[in-house]
Amino acid sequence: MTATQPATRPGGRSARVREAVFKAAQELAAEQGTEKLTLPCVATRAGVNPTTLYRRWGSMAGLLADIAATRIRHTEVPDTGSLAGDLGAFAEAVLQDLRQPGGIAILSIEVDSDLRARRDGLRRCRELRTSQLEQILDQERRRNGGAEPGLTVERINDRLVAPLYYRVLHDIPGADAAYARGLAAELTD
Amino acid sequence: MTATQPATRPGGRSARVREAVFKAAQELAAEQGTEKLTLPCVATRAGVNPTTLYRRWGSMAGLLADIAATRIRHTEVPDTGSLAGDLGAFAEAVLQDLRQPGGIAILSIEVDSDLRARRDGLRRCRELRTSQLEQILDQERRRNGGAEPGLTVERINDRLVAPLYYRVLHDIPGADAAYARGLAAELTD
Repeated sequence: MTATQPATRPGGRSARVREAVFKAAQELAAEQGTEKLTLPCVATRAGVNPTTLYRRWGSMAGLLADIAATRIRHTEVPDTGSLAGDLGAFAEAVLQDLRQPGGIAILSIEVDSDLRARRDGLRRCRELRTSQLEQILDQERRRNGGAEPGLTVERINDRLVAPLYYRVLHDIPGADAAYARGLAAELTD
Repeated sequence: MTATQPATRPGGRSARVREAVFKAAQELAAEQGTEKLTLPCVATRAGVNPTTLYRRWGSMAGLLADIAATRIRHTEVPDTGSLAGDLGAFAEAVLQDLRQPGGIAILSIEVDSDLRARRDGLRRCRELRTSQLEQILDQERRRNGGAEPGLTVERINDRLVAPLYYRVLHDIPGADAAYARGLAAELTD
């Protein structure tokens, strides 16, 4: 992945291109969805040469995956003072996230499809979320003088993340913030 | 959907073509995965004209969806004498199913992609599974003289089906029969 992810100096040309491309992709996704979106479309809107996008992201799936991963990395890990509060905020963030371009939409890209990029994208997002969950559990350990919390990352994935994925993937109604918080509450009751 | 799903008389020509195509697709999927599979490939193996496949299934995603739906329809709804037993058997069947061609693989078709067919396929499988769950809950009502079971289809989807989807989709190790039965046991404890 390093070849397609050069280190970017903030404010450098590379960072400006990245910002313009992300903005263009997000605007186009909001206007017309991600399904038919292609790198040349995004390039035109961003005013950047398409070859730059192909060199840097490889495919639309690769670009959406990078957008999603960047969004998750920039999401602060909630620290509300309790595990229940942290997980509730985390659940809401995951739900919002899955609905953004590059969230679950990465599974539905039809044009310019790239299975490896879709898989890598899913995996990277899952790893980033796992590390946020580990931080949340660490916060709980510190609150309780090092005592192990009664929850593991696996359990939180099964009981909180998986149902959110399932409902967004299948477009099942009623997957709102209250539902997300309910899943968290049930886990910590 | 009726246009692509003519009524088939068992033993008729249409039924024989269908059987040959399903067999060819399943063999090829087992040999090389579904990702790069195309209708012309399947047609060659089945000894059927590709235009027949395009007319009948539209795309590889359409064919895989039909295979998956047929498999679920032919799965007997478990009737083990208890809700816990029924849900355990159901969970195992879903897990097996997601791993078959047309299961979660329908999300990963790269060639001959057809988003609408993928979506329709996911939806049809979900509807078929929902109707099986409704039968399982009905069996439990009959066992208890009509009393409502403490579970709903939505809850079973969240707690049992969603984690199976999540783990198969992300290729997370440890999603085996014991894990599937554990999800069911936790629900009915």
